[in-house]
Amino acid sequence: MIDVAAAMRGFPEASGMSVEHLGRGEVRLSLARRADLLQFNGYFHGGVVSGLADHAAGAAASSALPSGRIAVTVDLHVNFLRPAEGERLVAEGRCVQSGSTICVASVQLDAISGGQARRCAIATATLRVVALPGTDGAAARPAD
Amino acid sequence: MIDVAAAMRGFPEASGMSVEHLGRGEVRLSLARRADLLQFNGYFHGGVVSGLADHAAGAAASSALPSGRIAVTVDLHVNFLRPAEGERLVAEGRCVQSGSTICVASVQLDAISGGQARRCAIATATLRVVALPGTDGAAARPAD
Amino acid sequence: MIDVAAAMRGFPEASGMSVEHLGRGEVRLSLARRADLLQFNGYFHGGVVSGLADHAAGAAASSALPSGRIAVTVDLHVNFLRPAEGERLVAEGRCVQSGSTICVASVQLDAISGGQARRCAIATATLRVVALPGTDGAAARPAD
Amino acid sequence: MIDVAAAMRGFPEASGMSVEHLGRGEVRLSLARRADLLQFNGYFHGGVVSGLADHAAGAAASSALPSGRIAVTVDLHVNFLRPAEGERLVAEGRCVQSGSTICVASVQLDAISGGQARRCAIATATLRVVALPGTDGAAARPAD
Repeated sequence: MIDVAAAMRGFPEASGMSVEHLGRGEVRLSLARRADLLQFNGYFHGGVVSGLADHAAGAAASSALPSGRIAVTVDLHVNFLRPAEGERLVAEGRCVQSGSTICVASVQLDAISGGQARRCAIATATLRVVALPGTDGAAARPAD
Repeated sequence: MIDVAAAMRGFPEASGMSVEHLGRGEVRLSLARRADLLQFNGYFHGGVVSGLADHAAGAAASSALPSGRIAVTVDLHVNFLRPAEGERLVAEGRCVQSGSTICVASVQLDAISGGQARRCAIATATLRVVALPGTDGAAARPAD
Repeated sequence: MIDVAAAMRGFPEASGMSVEHLGRGEVRLSLARRADLLQFNGYFHGGVVSGLADHAAGAAASSALPSGRIAVTVDLHVNFLRPAEGERLVAEGRCVQSGSTICVASVQLDAISGGQARRCAIATATLRVVALPGTDGAAARPAD
Repeated sequence: MIDVAAAMRGFPEASGMSVEHLGRGEVRLSLARRADLLQFNGYFHGGVVSGLADHAAGAAASSALPSGRIAVTVDLHVNFLRPAEGERLVAEGRCVQSGSTICVASVQLDAISGGQARRCAIATATLRVVALPGTDGAAARPAD
């Protein structure tokens, strides 16, 4: 299974993403509202929604791989269904195809407002399987 | 033309995005490297790349609209071509179709390392035209 | 509800698509294997898979709209999970967001081989609501 | 270089696609209007537009690979900018990233009407590099 703590370093940790659940091929992440994550109208910014979706896709796909391998996103498609308005975002990622070189993950994102969840976005990512840096001398690279 | 300062409030400003150029239907944004914008391997995080792409698409499309109207992203597709490795990211957005209800924008993203630009991602966004809040009594909504 | 027969004219009918089920916001289409729908390796061609996905998205979204309105695709994203190998393709489309101007539909595609269904692709489409030609004098146009 | 004639077998040939130009990493395909390629309103069907885009992406990416290798589409994103109305469609594909396992290609599609070209769609595809069947005993497979 992936090293969850290591994978949170940088933007995921700084923005406040937290892992609520991690299973084989599935993950649930959440992110609390904060002024620096919004757009001018008070909703979560599309980039922040995309970032949570990207991280959920990567964690879902990586958790289904053998030890020493992770999945890095090669492309990400996000559909914004409604304003991401609320005190919290929750992303549920699921690996829908796990191959030796390519994985595909689906993500559903809900905005939680007053305890009510409302689907605000869906996303699909294509990911590439790479060796985790340090595990076999090869650096993890999204593409070569 | 859109109110650039207002549109930067929240995540764009907090992450350090700056507008280098804004013309009718085109924009160039840049973003400097900062520890809280990276992923564990030291490259810009895919969510941050997506956020810059999203903002560039929105600015490019909005700048081609009549006053009082803005374009909000309904879907965003990002292809990550190479690691976004460098001291700065630059996104060039261009509106490729501007209609009364739908716009499409293309974005090219380069990572700048040692003064050298290298294409690290391309993106396409579909956007929806909405009335800017306060201009005609209607709130801007990504979807209803 | 949409006029299913009218919507099948042209490529859908010529390629052999048939409607197995149509409900409000959901549809199931199928397509039998035929030499002129394959690629060189004997699997259904990616364009044919995309065409079935596009039609399923349009039917699912249109069936959730008031009479006289249809949804036309503004963008389509297809993930090919496995070779589309079998005697038949089945696409299940579902409208996941239905607004006054924009709809989003998800599609799951299975290849049926020896009676066994295997997920071969998933797709997401963003669609635009337009007046059906002849219902109010306006021509249906994917974009203006 | 890829075997162009072999790659046209099946849907590409049956629908009438023709190769106008093939260079290293770039291709131009065209497709003439025919009743069985249209949708009910007389424009080229979205599936046909997607099929031409898919084939152009595959040819552009494959032509940049070493002999014995081809690129098969793992995901395809098409933006329909305007009705594909005219006597002919032309697709120009270009490989924008060519790696050892993943390629990315961009496609621009014009509808030709009365000799005038009008951009009707743009597309981006992520492709996977596979061994051509028969060249090393391995079958070409879009994913394993």
